[in-house]
Amino acid sequence: MNIQKASSHKILPRESFIIVTLSWLLMSLFGSLPLIISGAIPNFFDAFFEMCSGFTTTGASILRDVEAMPHSVLFWRSFSHWIGGMGVIVFILAIFPDNQDGSNMHILRAESPGPQVGKLTSKISATARILYLIYVALTIIEILFLFLGPDSKMDLFSSITLSLGTAGTGGFGILNDGIASYAPYSQYVIAVFMMLFGVNFTLFYLLLIGKFKSVFKNQELRLYLSIIIISVSIITISLTLNNVYATFEECFRHAFFQVTSLISTTGYATTDYAVQFPWPTICYMVIIFLMLTGPCAGSTGGGIKLSRISILFKSAIRKIKQMVSPRKVELLKESGTVIEEEVVEGAESFIVLFMIILFLSTFLVSFDGMDLTTNFTASLSCISNIGPGLGNVIGPAGNFADFSNFSKFVLSLTMITGRLELFPVLALFNYRTWKPR
Amino acid sequence: MNIQKASSHKILPRESFIIVTLSWLLMSLFGSLPLIISGAIPNFFDAFFEMCSGFTTTGASILRDVEAMPHSVLFWRSFSHWIGGMGVIVFILAIFPDNQDGSNMHILRAESPGPQVGKLTSKISATARILYLIYVALTIIEILFLFLGPDSKMDLFSSITLSLGTAGTGGFGILNDGIASYAPYSQYVIAVFMMLFGVNFTLFYLLLIGKFKSVFKNQELRLYLSIIIISVSIITISLTLNNVYATFEECFRHAFFQVTSLISTTGYATTDYAVQFPWPTICYMVIIFLMLTGPCAGSTGGGIKLSRISILFKSAIRKIKQMVSPRKVELLKESGTVIEEEVVEGAESFIVLFMIILFLSTFLVSFDGMDLTTNFTASLSCISNIGPGLGNVIGPAGNFADFSNFSKFVLSLTMITGRLELFPVLALFNYRTWKPR
Repeated sequence: MNIQKASSHKILPRESFIIVTLSWLLMSLFGSLPLIISGAIPNFFDAFFEMCSGFTTTGASILRDVEAMPHSVLFWRSFSHWIGGMGVIVFILAIFPDNQDGSNMHILRAESPGPQVGKLTSKISATARILYLIYVALTIIEILFLFLGPDSKMDLFSSITLSLGTAGTGGFGILNDGIASYAPYSQYVIAVFMMLFGVNFTLFYLLLIGKFKSVFKNQELRLYLSIIIISVSIITISLTLNNVYATFEECFRHAFFQVTSLISTTGYATTDYAVQFPWPTICYMVIIFLMLTGPCAGSTGGGIKLSRISILFKSAIRKIKQMVSPRKVELLKESGTVIEEEVVEGAESFIVLFMIILFLSTFLVSFDGMDLTTNFTASLSCISNIGPGLGNVIGPAGNFADFSNFSKFVLSLTMITGRLELFPVLALFNYRTWKPR
Repeated sequence: MNIQKASSHKILPRESFIIVTLSWLLMSLFGSLPLIISGAIPNFFDAFFEMCSGFTTTGASILRDVEAMPHSVLFWRSFSHWIGGMGVIVFILAIFPDNQDGSNMHILRAESPGPQVGKLTSKISATARILYLIYVALTIIEILFLFLGPDSKMDLFSSITLSLGTAGTGGFGILNDGIASYAPYSQYVIAVFMMLFGVNFTLFYLLLIGKFKSVFKNQELRLYLSIIIISVSIITISLTLNNVYATFEECFRHAFFQVTSLISTTGYATTDYAVQFPWPTICYMVIIFLMLTGPCAGSTGGGIKLSRISILFKSAIRKIKQMVSPRKVELLKESGTVIEEEVVEGAESFIVLFMIILFLSTFLVSFDGMDLTTNFTASLSCISNIGPGLGNVIGPAGNFADFSNFSKFVLSLTMITGRLELFPVLALFNYRTWKPR
């Protein structure tokens, strides 16, 4: 075997883009077959939307009555979240390492001096195995916490499906009112686990091997926790002042649950904050903020990711400083490590493309004639893989059934594009991607 | 006189930031004194908002009844637009040239191989003189076209005030229904001049000296005209299909007027597209798009500017290409010239800061409890110096009177920050700006 031959076995970055995009498309297509054939969701666009939403761990649904579905369908939906979450872990590890411009990988690497992700396949699979173990272990622990807790409504089926949905940061529920009718205990457990699944998984690994200091020093984690604390505070105060709920505990619980649900891009809800208990506008701004930032890189969550937000913010501040003192050269740092300029460039291109796709999706969905808030939050919810939006139609107690088939298809593609961090899907529109070797 | 002494007379970039921000603040403060003292607008925050809106050429008003104002006040408001527009021209030329990171200047330079803007003061003032002449000449031509036209409603006072507002891309009107009750002839004239004042002024200079080819080849101009044609087409078709107005001519005229008004960031309106004749949602998306892009760099218009949009778009596409073929190095070009990497960086930092300030302004205004669309479009309208927003309150027939004093103050600062292209105002928050030499 000569070198020529060996190298031809290596997958090129552009090939990996095709593979990963096709995987998610085909998974969603084939995943929707049982729904169509069984008659549970007879319309193709509905079924495709539902499974895209499942595998991309979005959790937006076109079902008006979830409770009318058989257990098999409900389990399949939640299980698709869990599979999707697994896919995301391996996707993060396997797709970008060879590619010098893979901002995603670089962010993960820059952020967490954890398991070294080298170019060797053996190393990648070793790392993947560890992360999978953490994923499985956390899921099982959540199931136990829910099932063994004092909540009589939380039977084994509920515990499993809701935990699968939490692990993948998905958000498909099995009741029409989401998580609202479960006991506060279960709500708190789910909220804590949503928060955990929004953390960079390599940090759990560092915890396991005793590197507490690295975890404590991780800037993205600190930012994540700070945003959660501030957001919960603002919403709790606002809800209390406006007497939206009867007790302070209720205000806090709903604030805490919704904040962890949205920042982790899960999308579960314990209250209908859009229609039945409309929150003050300032709370909606916090919600949109959380929908935009997303959780830590290297988690199963979607969205822009906090490390990107942080890099963009630092880079913009640096630009202002440069304009004030043109001769000073400054390197950007994160958790003590220097951020390479190509990582900054990657984050900047990402945010521009994110905005373009978000706008384009909102524009195309607008043909249905719904209001601006609905169209915008539907698109934001789909590109960030969250689930619910704002407004009367697609709020936490609503669904996406009222959209046209065209809009559902657009939103389905938006979900996949967002889930795969934009670049792999967009690369398919470059002719060079399809060139033979 | 030795060299030491001579160089100490040179204004440092950071000093120019202080000067320019203070100028706009003080102009607005002193400009509001006549309004307060005369009792025309007794509330300080109202008067300050109104004059910020004037000098930043925004055109958003807190007046519920413009027609109740004396001619002196109406003239003062429109004149402030014209002064503001003049200020912007000299600001663009004078503030950034020495600063290697001044993306604004670089954009102007990259875009238009027109009058060379060197480092010598003499050259700058020569260029400024030419641009001022063009500005004055275009204003006078518009006054003549309006006054000498067949519109009996267009007296000399109306012709002058409306032309001053057009030239500065401001948008203060003198009638409660804006431009709606003038004859179609006047509306077409104003629309054409709004379009002209959104063009890079150096292109008019190139036209004057006969360099037609450079003008024709200018990519930003082509983009500007393409966006106008596409937007007018979409809106005209949508309005015609939905029978919003009686005739096709009306649909076209309102589409053409509103598109040129919004892309040039003027803000005049011939129809109440928010309340009285609500346009289809898809038209609102076009409006938001126009509010985001803004006109050409080097015009009196505000907003992000098309050259920045174009650079960001090209840079993002390049990133995708780089991920597909990691080894290829590609330079970005615009109108045949290579765009320096620091210009790209400048545009990227600009867009991030733009989004941050837009979000922050929307967030702070949300405390008033108005709906999301109102808060967002109010902030977008102010940062881009347009005038009207969307929704029942601040639509083209509405005004900003219902906001609290706090929100009015926030929006006033947002206008100034947007008008000065963000960096000078933001630089004031860097301690180094205030260091003695």
